[in-house]
Amino acid sequence: MDIKVTLTQHKKEKPDYSNLPFGVYYTDHMFEWDYTEGIGWHDPRIVPFHNLEMSPCSMVLHYGQTTFEGLKAYLGKDGEIRLFRPELNMERLNTSNQRLVIPQFNVEDGVEAIKKLVEVDKDWIPTGEGTSLYIRPFIIATDVHIGVHPSKTYKFMIVLSPVGSYYKEGINPVRIYVEDEYCRAVKGGMGFTKTAGNYAASLIAQEIAEERGYTQVLWLDGVEKKYIEEVGTMNIMFVINNEVITPELNGSILPGITRRSAIELLKANGYKVTERKIAIQEVFDAYDNGTLNEIFGTGTAAVISPVGELLWEGRTIKVNNGEIGPVSHLVYDTITGIQSGKIEDKYGWVTKVD
Amino acid sequence: MDIKVTLTQHKKEKPDYSNLPFGVYYTDHMFEWDYTEGIGWHDPRIVPFHNLEMSPCSMVLHYGQTTFEGLKAYLGKDGEIRLFRPELNMERLNTSNQRLVIPQFNVEDGVEAIKKLVEVDKDWIPTGEGTSLYIRPFIIATDVHIGVHPSKTYKFMIVLSPVGSYYKEGINPVRIYVEDEYCRAVKGGMGFTKTAGNYAASLIAQEIAEERGYTQVLWLDGVEKKYIEEVGTMNIMFVINNEVITPELNGSILPGITRRSAIELLKANGYKVTERKIAIQEVFDAYDNGTLNEIFGTGTAAVISPVGELLWEGRTIKVNNGEIGPVSHLVYDTITGIQSGKIEDKYGWVTKVD
Repeated sequence: MDIKVTLTQHKKEKPDYSNLPFGVYYTDHMFEWDYTEGIGWHDPRIVPFHNLEMSPCSMVLHYGQTTFEGLKAYLGKDGEIRLFRPELNMERLNTSNQRLVIPQFNVEDGVEAIKKLVEVDKDWIPTGEGTSLYIRPFIIATDVHIGVHPSKTYKFMIVLSPVGSYYKEGINPVRIYVEDEYCRAVKGGMGFTKTAGNYAASLIAQEIAEERGYTQVLWLDGVEKKYIEEVGTMNIMFVINNEVITPELNGSILPGITRRSAIELLKANGYKVTERKIAIQEVFDAYDNGTLNEIFGTGTAAVISPVGELLWEGRTIKVNNGEIGPVSHLVYDTITGIQSGKIEDKYGWVTKVD
Repeated sequence: MDIKVTLTQHKKEKPDYSNLPFGVYYTDHMFEWDYTEGIGWHDPRIVPFHNLEMSPCSMVLHYGQTTFEGLKAYLGKDGEIRLFRPELNMERLNTSNQRLVIPQFNVEDGVEAIKKLVEVDKDWIPTGEGTSLYIRPFIIATDVHIGVHPSKTYKFMIVLSPVGSYYKEGINPVRIYVEDEYCRAVKGGMGFTKTAGNYAASLIAQEIAEERGYTQVLWLDGVEKKYIEEVGTMNIMFVINNEVITPELNGSILPGITRRSAIELLKANGYKVTERKIAIQEVFDAYDNGTLNEIFGTGTAAVISPVGELLWEGRTIKVNNGEIGPVSHLVYDTITGIQSGKIEDKYGWVTKVD
């Protein structure tokens, strides 16, 4: 792919890197790639970060035909810039596209675009503990048409944002609220994709959770409100009797890349890992009989987020005395170690940006 | 509400009104209204139709926090401009807002904005059979922030589009395909709202239906894939043994304004109308025992769309010999008659624009 690069003439001032929020500051450049029916994806380019000019009748604003991804670039103490399994993000973006009737793109081209953009804006990568350069590839339908039909034109963009921890708690355990009224997704829906509508559906429960002093929502299945699905921005894992159990990929939860990596490295470290249906009752039962060792969320934004407290139907349990446990620690240390270059990448997960 | 009006200096040329597509042409002006946390809705204004300048990191593009409505203005042979129950659209928009964590607005202000904008662009209202001025109020989250949280700023807009029939079939019966793999919405989700994500979820099934030669998809419930929900852009009604049966408002289907009006007028005309769960099997059973009289969809875009053919699990039934039936006719004639001013508005449904 021949990416045309136009550099900015007006570099922005960098924000205060000692106290970075999530997703507020954006770098000097962005990537753009257009799709036109009959032509395909064309004109890949890196240009100065700029506002979009859009018709108020653009399809994405009315019918939500859009997909996105999230990954990070890390600058190691060795001066190397590392991406974590970016090809999996680009493959998942294509999976989301298929469900949203958005055209497929070439995965290698997507990875190349990410690498090239990160290289252009590499002076924006923060180096503090827990910081990174967040990468947001996304695709929007751009037809100017108010009628429920797939668009004939699209725009694929990538923006970059230097970020701190997603949760203010950092690696400290978070409090999670089990939602049993609202529903995020159901089999046959879009739950396995990264698309705007899934997040729109989650806002009200997230709001209620925060009002009650909880960080995130744990979703139950939409059919029986019995089986555990995922947390708002993470997949979830339970360590019960030293076995790691996580909900199976059932079509309504996101196939997380950190989830997959955690499963692979835990298995490589001799842990028994099981992907299956798990009822919320089973977790509370395990707590009652003393076999619930740990709960932790996995996701790109937070990598690992230990769950210190779980509220369901008025009952609160404190997991592992509200402390981070050994399994969470192992996964966190290994993945962040590989991302930063401190630990050897024996799984071949890292793509370097030169 | 004090709406500031700025008229365009460059009126557009009108399209060919004898062959109007749906949602392609837009009028000379639009309405805009901003929301800022701590201030509320402010600066309502009618301005020349223009493109929006948006950050690529605007919340609506990533997390789909947006709601919309659809209604129409009709120009009668008596020269009067009529809106059909616009206060119900504005109430429903607030209902959608509540689910999407978007701030409430004053319903009367919303209706006033619609009336004022239609008045400003009244020379755009087409008069041909089946044509009207489509009105699209919508609200988008405008915070520039990549993080899953409700926005603190919003923009409420209204655009207008002169339109012909939504379906190329017009009032002629359409062919409908019963979808039993994909799912549109489920209880606890957003199905009862008009928000982008619901329509994004529906595109793939709509695409499959069209490829098979069908006009629209009939959705079944997301839990048992057994009970009828709604058609892509319409509610649905069945006339079985001269009783009109329509799915009850269960939280996952849209509370249609044409649906509500059809129920009210059918009851006023002595029909038995029942809102309850109805299984797709029951419809096919009624066909087999000869008691299925009619099926028709109700919605703002098409008003009434008779269903001539229904395909479910490989079996096709032809409803009422593929012809429009008397109940469909009564509802269509009454509602369109009231909208155009040909029939007396004894229900008090019409709001006139002066």
